[in-house]
This record gives sequence, structure tokens and C-alpha cells, in this order.
Amino acid sequence: VDCEVLAIGTELLLGQVVDTNSAWIGQQLAAAGIPCYEQTKVGDNHGRIVAALRAALGRGSDIICCGGLGPTQDDITREAIAEVMGVELRRQPELVARLKERFAGREIPEINYKQADLPAGAVPILASAGTAPGLVCPVGANVIYAVPGVPSEMREMVGGSVVPDLVRRSGRQATIRSRFLRVWGMTESRVAEVVAPRVEALEAPGSNTTIAFLASAREGIRVRITARASGEDAEAAALQALDKEEAELRALLGEAVGGVDDEGLEVVVGRLLTDYGLRVAVAESLTGGMVSARLTSVPGASNWFAGGVVSYGEDVKRSLLGVGPGPVVSEHAAEEMALGVMDVLNADIGLSLTGVAGPTSQDDQPVGTVFVGLAGGEGSGTGSGVRNSKADVTQLSLRGDRQLVRERATTQALDLLRRQLIEHPRPRHS
Amino acid sequence: VDCEVLAIGTELLLGQVVDTNSAWIGQQLAAAGIPCYEQTKVGDNHGRIVAALRAALGRGSDIICCGGLGPTQDDITREAIAEVMGVELRRQPELVARLKERFAGREIPEINYKQADLPAGAVPILASAGTAPGLVCPVGANVIYAVPGVPSEMREMVGGSVVPDLVRRSGRQATIRSRFLRVWGMTESRVAEVVAPRVEALEAPGSNTTIAFLASAREGIRVRITARASGEDAEAAALQALDKEEAELRALLGEAVGGVDDEGLEVVVGRLLTDYGLRVAVAESLTGGMVSARLTSVPGASNWFAGGVVSYGEDVKRSLLGVGPGPVVSEHAAEEMALGVMDVLNADIGLSLTGVAGPTSQDDQPVGTVFVGLAGGEGSGTGSGVRNSKADVTQLSLRGDRQLVRERATTQALDLLRRQLIEHPRPRHS
Repeated sequence: VDCEVLAIGTELLLGQVVDTNSAWIGQQLAAAGIPCYEQTKVGDNHGRIVAALRAALGRGSDIICCGGLGPTQDDITREAIAEVMGVELRRQPELVARLKERFAGREIPEINYKQADLPAGAVPILASAGTAPGLVCPVGANVIYAVPGVPSEMREMVGGSVVPDLVRRSGRQATIRSRFLRVWGMTESRVAEVVAPRVEALEAPGSNTTIAFLASAREGIRVRITARASGEDAEAAALQALDKEEAELRALLGEAVGGVDDEGLEVVVGRLLTDYGLRVAVAESLTGGMVSARLTSVPGASNWFAGGVVSYGEDVKRSLLGVGPGPVVSEHAAEEMALGVMDVLNADIGLSLTGVAGPTSQDDQPVGTVFVGLAGGEGSGTGSGVRNSKADVTQLSLRGDRQLVRERATTQALDLLRRQLIEHPRPRHS
Repeated sequence: VDCEVLAIGTELLLGQVVDTNSAWIGQQLAAAGIPCYEQTKVGDNHGRIVAALRAALGRGSDIICCGGLGPTQDDITREAIAEVMGVELRRQPELVARLKERFAGREIPEINYKQADLPAGAVPILASAGTAPGLVCPVGANVIYAVPGVPSEMREMVGGSVVPDLVRRSGRQATIRSRFLRVWGMTESRVAEVVAPRVEALEAPGSNTTIAFLASAREGIRVRITARASGEDAEAAALQALDKEEAELRALLGEAVGGVDDEGLEVVVGRLLTDYGLRVAVAESLTGGMVSARLTSVPGASNWFAGGVVSYGEDVKRSLLGVGPGPVVSEHAAEEMALGVMDVLNADIGLSLTGVAGPTSQDDQPVGTVFVGLAGGEGSGTGSGVRNSKADVTQLSLRGDRQLVRERATTQALDLLRRQLIEHPRPRHS
């Protein structure tokens, strides 16, 4: 059986809030192997919610309803489901008790009592204390699930109760686990080419593991491994399958694999710097602080991030960082910036970026030309980088508008730093 | 007649891409006074697209289809609409000619010719050169519009052709124009309170102007004015009504109104600095480069942005910016940072931020405590700021997690700079 998603809320139709819940639920359903053929948004209107539910049931689908479980007059999901089920709402004593616990002695506003009402025959989903319950509502052979629209509550209930119930009802009795490998410094098509042997191997009959790709300018490429297992030790078997496939993919992708799951480049770089006891300083021109901002988004960054200089104007490059005569968008300027910032901020490694974000060219260089300098590591090894005795400089040609060039330059500079740390972990001053 | 939105693409159901197009279209429909009661996502599946179109037509609705107009095998929106219309696809010579123009002499891949096919009876929407045409497809009394899923192309066609056609067909023959006033430094409920007299005035019979509010942490509060006019000089009348209401709202909101439409704080600050011929330098601790990154997102920022120092580690604050002994999260440190960065980067104005982003407290200050320093302007005037002869410091208490505190501190610091420039435009060194 497939499962549709019905997002409820007039603010979604007016575009005041973008419906990200449905996309997240879609990801979970896909990872669990449950087909999702349609996702709908309707406003806080009884007749339209009822019609949308009936239409989905008419297609033979299960439904996850998202939103409309709060205490206000707008929140009418319970009533609409009761009408579709052909039953009354009944106040549940155990939910009233829970409500009293939540209000901890304070008077419960009359309006809140409706959160203790369930359509007859429905079962509550009780998530963390303090939130309204979700609903599991059988309708013939199908089920309508209802969860709150608040993303954190929705995620807890869908991930913890709804998807497992859908999987159980599908008769597969399977455990499904996913893991993301984060890949940087390769194009999506190159990644696909490199891991093609694994895609092929996993298509063999009896395989319970799949891989898929997701790409974005900021997040790099994420390779998702999904493993399904059943039986008594299903959990352990699924995790073992993930470990096995991760090892296979790492053997093919090598150091292009930076992090796992939610680890961004900045987290990986921070961990490597911590491991080696090094501190980095950053000099930025075209990215104007974006590299430093990403590094400092990691809690505890002060242990491995010395600081940064945003040398946007030419005079700052020359006076503070000691960049000599000649064009400031150049290999030479990138080198001097990296050495300069390492020196001025007393760091072990200096990372620099100078380039042309657009909209117009500069120093006879076209938009998208970026020089990334790395000082303090020994030797070269930074891709197509130019070697010399003082700092490695890599020239990039990036596509896109001003914001995209800045975003891509930031990501690539962090990846160059990551690769430098993997290959040449010793600081120059050690 | 209402208008539904049908977003087409399997990647939307899988959650690999969040459907922001529907939200944007919802905003446009709302601004034009066209009701939108339902928005649906389906995959690249002929039968399901046809069923979704028929269901919407069965509800008596017009439909905007988004996506599936490209040249690949996945792109089947044209075929699905033709089936619903009960007609064949026909190759249009003028669209073939346009295709040839687009390929400029290069051979046209066979697969691309389908972009010159239209359901019989449909009219193409020709947007900028280089994009596939959209479709206007009459079905009985209703119309199915089809536009590409690429956001820029979608926006051009929906804003330029589809919404005007819907308005025209609604028989209102009205021209509808909207304008956003950008408000910073006030809560949403305070804005609502201040402009309440205007909301009331606009509810009077015969009023063709409305206002609405949208709030976000990064963008501040946007007050949307929408004016409707009809008759011969409808365009001029609508713009006149916008001008009049903008003046009324500005009289109430004063300098809380920073920009108009797409102008972010960084654009407004840049314009003020340009007007006064001043250059600002920024010293950032907890925001780690975010203020500089926002300022340098504006093309031409080098004319008014001297540069920045990300003084994340304590030693950088002391050595480079000359912050003396004592806690670095303090009013005094903020003052010294602002003066220090102004001096080191030879700027007219120094802006500084030091504070606690979390997750743990620092220098006995709780998470969310932020000091913003402003040096170089004469006098005080920065809200609840503490005055002294050298730099103004404002203390903020911000809520939220680490990322939200950093985001809010960035926005508030830029707003304090904006207000300082409005009130005391003369530099200290002038």
C-alpha cells in the first residue's frame, strides 16, 4: 500500500510558510521503501480536508495528515477525520490526565481540552511530554495518521511511530536503516561513475541494500546507503550491512569521502585540526567572511580557529596582510594573503581566497576565477595547485552568479584545507 | 474561479527537492486576490498527472502546472494535458523556428523537438529567449496553465503572463500591484499595534488597498501593501495608491522602515554609507564573519566596506584589536573592538560584536548576551545603548539556538548601524 501526505494549513497555500514537512516525510517513506504517489496541501477548511481525505482513500492509499492538531478554532483535523470515519469525537480520560500533567497545576484553558478528544476507534500517538498527541485512525483497510505541523514534533512521531507502523502493516516486518556519506571535490556524474560497480552489485537478486545520490552546492554530494533486514537481529544486521557498504564505497571514493550523516565540511575540518593540535587563520576577499562564518558555526571552534581577516578592500590586503605590488586577484596575492594572515594571527595554517565574484571582471580576470592559498602545510598535493616553497595556490574556475560563486568558493576552499590536512598533517612551524 | 497548483516531479515526492515554487505561486495568487484552495505534488507518471488534472477540473478549478516541460523522457506534462483536453499534440512551426534560433546553427537533438509540440488549441507562453514555452490550455470554462519547474523561468511566466490572465478572466479587469516595506528593530506584534489605525482605515467600504505582515529572523518584518485599481489608468491609479499608503505607514513606523521590496539591510546600509562617503570596518566574535559576509553580498561593497577582522580567539582581540585585560564578552571589550578595527583598517566607522552564541555560557554571561559596539559616529542614539565619549555599546539578549543567536545578532548589528547612519551621519574623523 502507498501512503500520501496531506499538509493542512491556510498559511501553506498563501505561501507564508514553505511546506518542508512533506518533503521530509517523503524522504522517510522512500528510505523505508513505502511508495508515495501524491502530496497535497489544503487550508483550514472542514469540507476541503474531508474531501481530500476521501479522495486519497478512494485511491486506496494510507494518509499522513500534518497540522491542525493545536487547540485553536483553526485546528480542525480531528473533526474532519471523525467525519470521514463516520464516528464521534470522544474525550479520553488518560489524555485529560496527560493534559493536567502538562499544565502542572495551572488552570487548563477550556480550549485546550479538545486536544484530549479522539475519533472513536482511533489510537493516540504519545510523543514527548508537553505535546499534543498524534492519531492512528483505521478506516476500512487503510489508516489515516495525524501528526502536528510543528517540525520537531512531526519528526518525532513520523520517525518513531508512523513509519514503523507502516512498515509493520506492509507485512515486511523489516528494519530499515540509512546512512549518508558526504563527498566533496567531485562532480555528481563522476561520483556515479566511480561507484557504478557497487550500484550494479546491489542490483543482484537478494540484495537488501540500495544507494542513491543527492547533490547541492553547499552540502556537496551525499551518497545515501539504505539497508533493510528482518528477523530477530534485524537491527544489528541492518547496521552491519551499512558498515559493509560504507567500507566498499570508501574503498572506491577514497578521501573524497569527508563526513558521515550531518557532518558538514566545517565539522570535519575542525576535527582534523583538533586531532593534529593545529589552528587555522583565514584571509578572505571575494567570500567576505563566509569561510570564517562556516568554521565558527561549529561549537568549540575557538580551539582550532585563530581568526580571520576580511581583506575586501585592496588597502587592507596591502597594509594588514603585506600583499605587495601587482594585481590582487592573482596567484601571488593569494600566496601572500595566506602567509600574511598566518603570521598576523599567529596561526599554524593560513588559508586565503581572492577572486572575482562578479557581476564584473577584475584585474583582467573573468567572473568565477578564484585563487585559494594554503600556507603552513609542507609540500603540495592540493589538486591542480601550483607548488612553491612558501604556500600552495590552487586556481578555480567557478560557474554561477555572484552568490553561487561565493558559496562554491567557500566549499572548495574548505575542501582543499581538508585534503591538505589529510595528506600533510604536520604544521610548518612544528 | 479559484486556481490550484500542481507541481510535477518525482524528486519532489522523494523529498530530494523542496517544492518552493508552489509557495511562491500561492503568494502571487493571494496578492492578486485569486483564491487557491489546494496544491498538489505528483511524480512523473502519466496516469497520475492526468488523474490529478481531472480531479482539479472536477472541483471547477483552474490549474497552474509546474514542471515536466523539459526535453527528456521524464517530461510528460504536454502529453498529460493533451489527454485531458482530448486532443493530439501538434508541432508548431513558429516554435521550431524559435528552437533553431536558440541552438544558433548547432544541430538540434531529436529529443528537443518535443518542446515545439503543443496540445491542439493551446497557446504558448513565450518568455525570455532560450527557455521552453509555457502553455495556456482551455478546457471547457477552465484553463490549465503549464510552466517550467526552473524557478526563474516559472516566476517570469507566472508573474508576467499567468496571473495577469487569471485576473483578466476573473472579469475584474483590475490591475493589482504590491510593494513590501522592510521593517527592522521591532517585534511583529509591535508593528501590528503601530499600524493598526491603517488596517482599520483600509477596512472601510470602497477601499481597494490591503496590508499584510510576513516575519522572518533574517529578513525582518515585511509589510505588504496591495492596491487594486480598474479602468483606463488602472496602472497609474494602483501605483498612486501604493505611494499614498507607503507614506501613511512611514509616518507611523518612522525609521523602522529600512528598505522597500527586495532591499535587505545590507543594501540599505551600503546606500547610506555611499551617500555619506563613509567606509565601515567590522570586528566580529560570536558571528564569526556573518556580518562581513552579508555586507559583501552587495555588488560594489568595496566602495564602502573597508574590511573585517574575525577576532574569534581571545588573543586576536588583544593583539590585533588592542582589547585590554578583562572579560572579552563585555561592554568594554565591544567598545575597544569597535575602536580597534576602525583604527587598524583605517575606516570611518567601526562596528563590533562580542557575545555568547552558546551552547555554553562564557565570562559569566548567559547564552544570547551580545554587545554591539559602534565607533566613529558622534553622540549616542542607538536604542538602549550606553553612552560614552568613544563608542556606543548596545547590549542585546537574544533567544534561540547557536545558529539563531548568530543570525539575530547579525541582523540587529546591521540595523544599529543603519539607525546610527540615519541619526548621526557625520564621521568622527570628518
